Amino acid sequence: IYTNHTIMISDCPTTVHGLQSIFQEQEMTETVHDTEGHGYLATFIGKNGRLVILRVTALGLLTIDLQCCEGDNIVQVENLLNTLEEKLRSLLHGNIKRVKRLPALTRGAAVDRYWPTADGRLVEYDIDRVVYDEDSAYQNIKIMHSRQFGNILILNGDVNLAESDLPYTQAIMGRGKENYAGKEVLILGGGDGGILAEAVKLNVYIDQMVIDGCRTHMRKACGSVLDNLKGECYQVLVEDCVPVLKKYVEEGKTFDYVINDLTAVPISTAPEEDSTWEFLQLILDLSIKVLRPTGKYFTQGNSANLTETLALYEEQLGRLSCPVDFSKEVVCVPSYMELWVFYTIWKK
Amino acid sequence: IYTNHTIMISDCPTTVHGLQSIFQEQEMTETVHDTEGHGYLATFIGKNGRLVILRVTALGLLTIDLQCCEGDNIVQVENLLNTLEEKLRSLLHGNIKRVKRLPALTRGAAVDRYWPTADGRLVEYDIDRVVYDEDSAYQNIKIMHSRQFGNILILNGDVNLAESDLPYTQAIMGRGKENYAGKEVLILGGGDGGILAEAVKLNVYIDQMVIDGCRTHMRKACGSVLDNLKGECYQVLVEDCVPVLKKYVEEGKTFDYVINDLTAVPISTAPEEDSTWEFLQLILDLSIKVLRPTGKYFTQGNSANLTETLALYEEQLGRLSCPVDFSKEVVCVPSYMELWVFYTIWKK
Repeated sequence: IYTNHTIMISDCPTTVHGLQSIFQEQEMTETVHDTEGHGYLATFIGKNGRLVILRVTALGLLTIDLQCCEGDNIVQVENLLNTLEEKLRSLLHGNIKRVKRLPALTRGAAVDRYWPTADGRLVEYDIDRVVYDEDSAYQNIKIMHSRQFGNILILNGDVNLAESDLPYTQAIMGRGKENYAGKEVLILGGGDGGILAEAVKLNVYIDQMVIDGCRTHMRKACGSVLDNLKGECYQVLVEDCVPVLKKYVEEGKTFDYVINDLTAVPISTAPEEDSTWEFLQLILDLSIKVLRPTGKYFTQGNSANLTETLALYEEQLGRLSCPVDFSKEVVCVPSYMELWVFYTIWKK
Repeated sequence: IYTNHTIMISDCPTTVHGLQSIFQEQEMTETVHDTEGHGYLATFIGKNGRLVILRVTALGLLTIDLQCCEGDNIVQVENLLNTLEEKLRSLLHGNIKRVKRLPALTRGAAVDRYWPTADGRLVEYDIDRVVYDEDSAYQNIKIMHSRQFGNILILNGDVNLAESDLPYTQAIMGRGKENYAGKEVLILGGGDGGILAEAVKLNVYIDQMVIDGCRTHMRKACGSVLDNLKGECYQVLVEDCVPVLKKYVEEGKTFDYVINDLTAVPISTAPEEDSTWEFLQLILDLSIKVLRPTGKYFTQGNSANLTETLALYEEQLGRLSCPVDFSKEVVCVPSYMELWVFYTIWKK
């Protein structure tokens, strides 16, 4: 358990002394550390492996971290925190700018609830159980149950789709403004089956295990479309999409819609991401080639906050072998906890 | 800064020894603490007020907390964490169940980004500046700017409404299924002006400062409706709504719609919340009295995860002086980071 108090204070020695008495009552062993002029720092070790870290910086920020181990008495721990907070308020009354206690952080639990957003923020999900957790040859595939979002597909630590996320599927299909009846549609990626379930034709994906996991555990998203890889009006190819696209280009096969649900735009331009950018460019180029002149290409971008990443992607759109125009839309995908950008691209 | 690694290990002494050399290279001063049989615990104090807490529990969970102060070299800190993680992976290869590094927690910053959800989860917002921060006679009123959500109104630490949250306003107005033309509407609360801006008639609120703050800083939500407390077809009363409702009941004044946007359902049934429950019951009873036989009463409930709280509220609906029926709907409000329940209530 991790909890902290943040306080701007003016009177350090009195405050520290006032708190010490509480730790003494708890029979905690104090160690005062030499910080070489970087404020006051003491640690207190208590029963059951409890640890308190008390710091006061030169700028008057006081932090208290309380760690306890699994099996500790949570009511006692809460009471200790309440006592500390009350004491601080009474010691510092009038001199407190802010007191803040954060919810406990749990580490090493069987169920990991922390899945940071694409823009790097710490968010805790209401996940209560692990439904599926396997490594395929390509990635780690987790399906975890959230009380509010239903089952969530998490690929290599990235939240991909939850059963609540119809807005994602609708956004990447043009937000209900398209008439798919009688049209030919090529879906790249989308192994979760969400788009296919929204009535489409052809699906290409390389990781059979994602399909298997979703077929069983994400039925609110994919319905029954993944039960058979071939339906009356669709076919699922579990293959690398690049050779398939190249074959279509050679054959002159074209589509009314190409929906690229393979991957988000890479966040960094670090060398290790180079191949992802190249992959993105290759897929884009091939996709536009198999798109009919009046066709539309739908794809996800990334977090609305990653403006540089999105700008790089838009720059890339100007360098395709066939000139294109695009529009974009910001959508709230329930399980993402951040707004997400979707693109519509068409031939000029 | 707070960062942790979570690892299940089998070989504690070798691991600890392997990490110690890294801390020695950093010229950090080690203190090994006696935990009375609750695993290994050491603290390391370094330059610039850096502190590392290294723990290994009997169950094989290894945690590393690294704290640093404002002004420390973040690149150096990141490098230290990378070195520690690499070392752990090489020391424990094959015996690691999971490695997890969490984003840094910042405490005491001018801009507080942590606003836990109603169901108690830790979430970090993308807030980059404080727009307004004042205490009224009734509450603390903050308006903070989020990169993705626009300005967010936070009352006493609860996220109330962001400029992105049209879905909230639409939900509490019946999701576009109602025709408000020519109807008489009573809005209780709603000082942010969101509902009023969506074309209504009469608004009752007690905290003039919320109205003032929102009029200036939440214009994407309220438009210009709060510029004047009286418009062609609406009137804003900055008063306690209870006497106003009582007066309407006495006068026999009724409405087609009553929209209660005063407060969410109280989370606890602790004695200190008793008055909120009583207040809720009083408002409900008076509101139903001023509702026409064919009228509808719209209100927010609370987080979809707070099922007990919602059940208590629904129980209360069965104890009104006039029998009612209700329906509910779960809505994704962008800035809430949790799904929210809305009620429609009508006379039987």
